[in-house]
Amino acid sequence: MTQSIVSSNEWHAELRGRREAVWAIAQREACDFVLIYGSDGHAEPFRYLTNFVPALGETWLLMHGGGVSCVMNFDWQVVEAQRASGIHDWYGAFQPLPLLIDQLTSANPRQIGVVGFERMPVTVYNALADALPVASFKDIGAAVARLRRRKSPLEIKLLREAGRITDLAFDAMRGELKPGLTEHEVAARVAYHMGRLGAGLSFPPTVVSGNDDPIMIRMPTERKLEMGDSVMFDIGAEYQGYQADASRTFVLGKPSADQLAVWSVVTEAYHAALEQVRPGNPCNATQIAGEKVINDAGYELIHRIGHGIGLATSFEWPSLITETAPFEPGVAICLEPGIYVKGTGNMKLEDDLVVTDDGYELLTNSSRELTID
Amino acid sequence: MTQSIVSSNEWHAELRGRREAVWAIAQREACDFVLIYGSDGHAEPFRYLTNFVPALGETWLLMHGGGVSCVMNFDWQVVEAQRASGIHDWYGAFQPLPLLIDQLTSANPRQIGVVGFERMPVTVYNALADALPVASFKDIGAAVARLRRRKSPLEIKLLREAGRITDLAFDAMRGELKPGLTEHEVAARVAYHMGRLGAGLSFPPTVVSGNDDPIMIRMPTERKLEMGDSVMFDIGAEYQGYQADASRTFVLGKPSADQLAVWSVVTEAYHAALEQVRPGNPCNATQIAGEKVINDAGYELIHRIGHGIGLATSFEWPSLITETAPFEPGVAICLEPGIYVKGTGNMKLEDDLVVTDDGYELLTNSSRELTID
Repeated sequence: MTQSIVSSNEWHAELRGRREAVWAIAQREACDFVLIYGSDGHAEPFRYLTNFVPALGETWLLMHGGGVSCVMNFDWQVVEAQRASGIHDWYGAFQPLPLLIDQLTSANPRQIGVVGFERMPVTVYNALADALPVASFKDIGAAVARLRRRKSPLEIKLLREAGRITDLAFDAMRGELKPGLTEHEVAARVAYHMGRLGAGLSFPPTVVSGNDDPIMIRMPTERKLEMGDSVMFDIGAEYQGYQADASRTFVLGKPSADQLAVWSVVTEAYHAALEQVRPGNPCNATQIAGEKVINDAGYELIHRIGHGIGLATSFEWPSLITETAPFEPGVAICLEPGIYVKGTGNMKLEDDLVVTDDGYELLTNSSRELTID
Repeated sequence: MTQSIVSSNEWHAELRGRREAVWAIAQREACDFVLIYGSDGHAEPFRYLTNFVPALGETWLLMHGGGVSCVMNFDWQVVEAQRASGIHDWYGAFQPLPLLIDQLTSANPRQIGVVGFERMPVTVYNALADALPVASFKDIGAAVARLRRRKSPLEIKLLREAGRITDLAFDAMRGELKPGLTEHEVAARVAYHMGRLGAGLSFPPTVVSGNDDPIMIRMPTERKLEMGDSVMFDIGAEYQGYQADASRTFVLGKPSADQLAVWSVVTEAYHAALEQVRPGNPCNATQIAGEKVINDAGYELIHRIGHGIGLATSFEWPSLITETAPFEPGVAICLEPGIYVKGTGNMKLEDDLVVTDDGYELLTNSSRELTID
């Protein structure tokens, strides 16, 4: 087996540090038990503390005193989960509720710090509350989420790797694009180029081609690429949970004057937003700067200019359209100005970056040229 | 664009029929409003009624009287959603709660039939209940789920297509497998062969190679295939939401006597289970028959023999280990006996099938041979 870019020991030490930080939050909030819920498809807080999510099903992490255990719907992946997390106690149960209730009642907690309330099923919560009439539940999700805002050196290393693999997919597609390929074929090649390097997909690859039916985001279709098409990719490799999210637009053949004109507005908006990324500057300064360029050129920024990246892509803090807090070193974001109009199709440019002490480091770097020959 | 195997009109008619059936359930249960929650990653009831789930985020479907509307977190895919569903009213809102409350309070319902209670976040439920102090909520999820047990002709057509694409991926891998490829490379090729035909993945492709570290299910690794390896695939194409789930085991080079012996037990268990599939026979007769073969040979069936397929793969009714109800025509399942022991690695055979009036129809049919030359 080839070496992972992060060793098991390095991972386990990082995870212990994260769990200690969560336990310290619990202590401050007078909780003697922590219950972390990871929904199927959205288990980021769980993954943050275990370096694992199963292929299918919900997850629960329980902490009290020195003990940590995990529960999931299926027991198929217990060995893999143990290796990834360094946690020994994993349980699989299709109906995990009795197991959860058993572990909770035997610990007899007074106050349970909960992470994941915003996705925890009402039926489960009610059953737990009924089983623990004396205990109270306290939502500590916001404080725990705050731990994920500034990325650690290990997290930045993983995001850099996710960006590198995403760049390789763009480079490959720059060489492979040609008229006659379907959007499905192109998207499948993107998934192949990422998967062969051990990466997952941050989200299903988006490939929108053509100039006359611009839809900001849609799934690939059987449409065949034609000469003159704008072909927009919005793709991202996921490496050990950390998700890139980047976009390139290629034109098949010689770009039209209209395509060049729109693209120059997109790139100008991109640079205007990028210039706003530095510690101390408000996050939404990127939106304001990028939007001004696009509006001044007579277009509309119909999609926010960007958002945080990490374990949760589009859901990651900060949303650059609303967040007025200042950037800090370690905050990782994508910037993604785009213009979607008839005649030139979807034109978007998106890169990932992490805020540094005096500016930013780009995590995706593949060529931003519109032409592909 | 090539023709989909189901036309828009056909889809929209099917969806209207499904929604009418849900509305009839609501009427029987004295509900004057229906609220269907689709969680991110598990929106099957929502998809069943709309032929759509977004790439990211939660979904809500609201029905009252003749009206239907849908709410999701992002507005990116509204056009695509309208086309897929034939429903006009789609709303995107990152915080959908105010929009939901607004629609609910203006309809002033007395009793709301809810589907998806088992995943609905407690915070959302509490906010809705607070906003509607006079209304009551009634869980109609079980009755609605029952509609999905017997697949319609359109659903069987889609499952057949998902099976056909899965077969093509097996055929391709039979030709491409060779020593030196990594599991990541092999899994990426599976995803490519499915994606290029317009299919998604029912779940991340599983490729487990080697004979000495059998783990029932794990994600692919950087391990390189070697001569003599058992290479188990558990993969499935998803076509318009309908998910195949099938397994093949290939041996690189000449199978050992031990591999042949274990494989013959697996295939015998497969046939024993298959013989039990007919209308009127209890679902778990498959488990009992397959398990007997495996136990008699001195092994253990550590994974259930199979489960329903449709929109939800592993979560689909029936679980063949527990369900004692009889098979009925239209019920779709997979059968997946496997033996996982040191020396011969993972050996599993899995096919999809649908119960017919007098037996079954196999939906996956690619070669079941262990040897690949």
